[in-house]
Amino acid sequence: MTLDVSLLARRARAALPALAAAPASQRDAFLGALAARLRADPAPVLAANAADLAAGARLDAPMRDRLRLDRDRLAALADGLDALAGLPDPLGVRFDQRTLANGLRLHRRRVPLGVLGAIYEARPNVTLDIAALAIKTGNAAVLRGGSESLASNRALVAAVHAALADAGLPVDAVAFVDSPDRAAVAALLAAGDAIDLMIPRGGASLHAFCRQHARMPVVTGGIGICHLYVDAAADLARALAVIANAKTQRPTVCNALDTVLVHRAVAARFLPMLAADLHARGVQLRLAPAARAALDAAGFAQSPGGAAVVDAGPGDFDREWLALVLGIEVVDGLDAAIAHIARHGSGHSDGILTDDAGQAAHFLDRVDSAAVYWNASTRFTDGAEFGLGAEVAVSTQRVHARGPMGLEQLTSWKWVVEGDYHVR
Amino acid sequence: MTLDVSLLARRARAALPALAAAPASQRDAFLGALAARLRADPAPVLAANAADLAAGARLDAPMRDRLRLDRDRLAALADGLDALAGLPDPLGVRFDQRTLANGLRLHRRRVPLGVLGAIYEARPNVTLDIAALAIKTGNAAVLRGGSESLASNRALVAAVHAALADAGLPVDAVAFVDSPDRAAVAALLAAGDAIDLMIPRGGASLHAFCRQHARMPVVTGGIGICHLYVDAAADLARALAVIANAKTQRPTVCNALDTVLVHRAVAARFLPMLAADLHARGVQLRLAPAARAALDAAGFAQSPGGAAVVDAGPGDFDREWLALVLGIEVVDGLDAAIAHIARHGSGHSDGILTDDAGQAAHFLDRVDSAAVYWNASTRFTDGAEFGLGAEVAVSTQRVHARGPMGLEQLTSWKWVVEGDYHVR
Repeated sequence: MTLDVSLLARRARAALPALAAAPASQRDAFLGALAARLRADPAPVLAANAADLAAGARLDAPMRDRLRLDRDRLAALADGLDALAGLPDPLGVRFDQRTLANGLRLHRRRVPLGVLGAIYEARPNVTLDIAALAIKTGNAAVLRGGSESLASNRALVAAVHAALADAGLPVDAVAFVDSPDRAAVAALLAAGDAIDLMIPRGGASLHAFCRQHARMPVVTGGIGICHLYVDAAADLARALAVIANAKTQRPTVCNALDTVLVHRAVAARFLPMLAADLHARGVQLRLAPAARAALDAAGFAQSPGGAAVVDAGPGDFDREWLALVLGIEVVDGLDAAIAHIARHGSGHSDGILTDDAGQAAHFLDRVDSAAVYWNASTRFTDGAEFGLGAEVAVSTQRVHARGPMGLEQLTSWKWVVEGDYHVR
Repeated sequence: MTLDVSLLARRARAALPALAAAPASQRDAFLGALAARLRADPAPVLAANAADLAAGARLDAPMRDRLRLDRDRLAALADGLDALAGLPDPLGVRFDQRTLANGLRLHRRRVPLGVLGAIYEARPNVTLDIAALAIKTGNAAVLRGGSESLASNRALVAAVHAALADAGLPVDAVAFVDSPDRAAVAALLAAGDAIDLMIPRGGASLHAFCRQHARMPVVTGGIGICHLYVDAAADLARALAVIANAKTQRPTVCNALDTVLVHRAVAARFLPMLAADLHARGVQLRLAPAARAALDAAGFAQSPGGAAVVDAGPGDFDREWLALVLGIEVVDGLDAAIAHIARHGSGHSDGILTDDAGQAAHFLDRVDSAAVYWNASTRFTDGAEFGLGAEVAVSTQRVHARGPMGLEQLTSWKWVVEGDYHVR
């Protein structure tokens, strides 16, 4: 079967005027209808997901976990849809109102972005997520999930289409690339005229593939080499708690901590505390020479049950660990920390731990990352944590949107100009 | 000579921290120094431009006009630099300030976008334009002008570099691709990791080429199939003046009018007025059958000295004329006008002429263009006319920026998060 991805995308585009004309109540009604359907009739989705899990028996455990939908997860997704329906409508908002000297009245008005593309891996919840975010913001969407979740996605899209019909919205607005064929991904990325923004959801290789092949703007993200700098004026006990949180609370995600930089003045005091704590939490430490020297000088000894404390190898400070591993470096001060982050960071999430507001302000000014932190865990870089109500993605590019993307980042604007038969 | 474009771009990127750290006064000092240099010592630029003009003796007259720099034009460019220096600094502005329930304090802060690329044709003024806009906004730039203006651009870039040095800014911040080789354009478009945003300045084919080959986000624009709809409730005499302005004030630019749609109820009255007026102004009219019928029924006769009034051919309503040519169609009403624009428009600038506020509101809601107008000429779609102080480009894409782009659209933001050793 050859699936005409470009045709799907053009049909989705053709649904845009109806979506743009639909009031918020109608778009929110879709979300409510979808939640109600998932609650009232979860069986088709659960059965399809069981089939995917059975077919994917050889997948590794984390992958199977990402693939799994059960009653509780489905209920949580339904609750999320209701919560999204309760968020303010981003469309129609007027901003930048002004009257020019010639009397022309101008404003900008928020409108949908257009057709969103999404390419993602195992997690079938992304199907609901993107469909819901798209319709909430008046956008159409073309979805291509991983082949291992094909049956689950198909069942979820059936519910999405039924809910669109319930709400009187065009079912073409959410198109599903119902094909396990990798060529469909290439076709989707090539549909540059039909898709306004491509959202990859997955690991670094998926993001790189999309950036390389996409003929439309792509949300770049998915990689975070995140740093915390422990300043000489840090509260060391509290700094330790922040580092432990940033490293261990969920080590497999992009805002988890990768490298700790310690001011030389406190290295002898702090590094033994840090090593003892993380070592006991199962975190493998990779030490730069100066960090090793400070630990050795302090007489630090690994306890038999702890994780390894090893010397950092070449490139270790340029890696996103996604695991219980942490690089440690000693720096001469604030500017050296900033320089290290500029050289090794990925512009995702980086912070300073200090009680000195001046040092913090300098760090927040000079570190050029999507999110910069003073005395907080890097794990907060997240749409929900930032109070955006919903998260589309975390962008590390600078164009269009940077950092956690909320509903507003799924909109564009039009300029509205009102005159009295004005001529130039 | 093989020019290492990627190296140029990486050097420009390396200048970013110094630019981001430079206060507005220093960036504005660059603009002032550049203006002063152009005023005090225009000879090298004028001599280089004379050489380009001599080498381009076979270029057509409009091209030679775009290429030409004289004392007056250079003085106007210097004045423009001073005006730009006087605009407010877009950097450092804080917005979206909020304190979350957990006590985290968040805001977004405007930062430079990064490295801008610019690919343009004959006009050497674009060299100054992009260099000035880039430095004003703390960005670096890599410039590639047309080969026919190579000597002019080289002389202008020398002035830019001298002014950067005057202001204590890194000269690498504005890089110039000093090569007439088309391969340099391809190399620039391939430098996806080093350039954050590519700005094409030129015709439709340049834009299409950039979109096809760029490995970074591109400002899409350069094409406008612009419409004015004359509603039944329009003041016909005033509508005529707006149409004449939109079509004839500068027909070669993208916001010039391409098609007039006339409500059937006023076609018999308005079309003879319109035809007589434009015909006398040398505008060739291309009539859809209904427009032809209305004119014929009104007994309209071409005057011998006027431009041709001909039947529209296939595709005539899908063309950007860039000349004194205008398509005319009769429609059954507002929704038919909106449907025509959706089908044939390019999403640039489209307007309604009417005294009926309800009809206008419906049009402004439903027409999905970068700029929508009520009772004004489409020729206003321009950064300076919109009061943005400066114009980077007019974007017809929906991502990042839509319509006239001002200084703000050359910025990104960072999220700044301040806590009290917060953990998640």
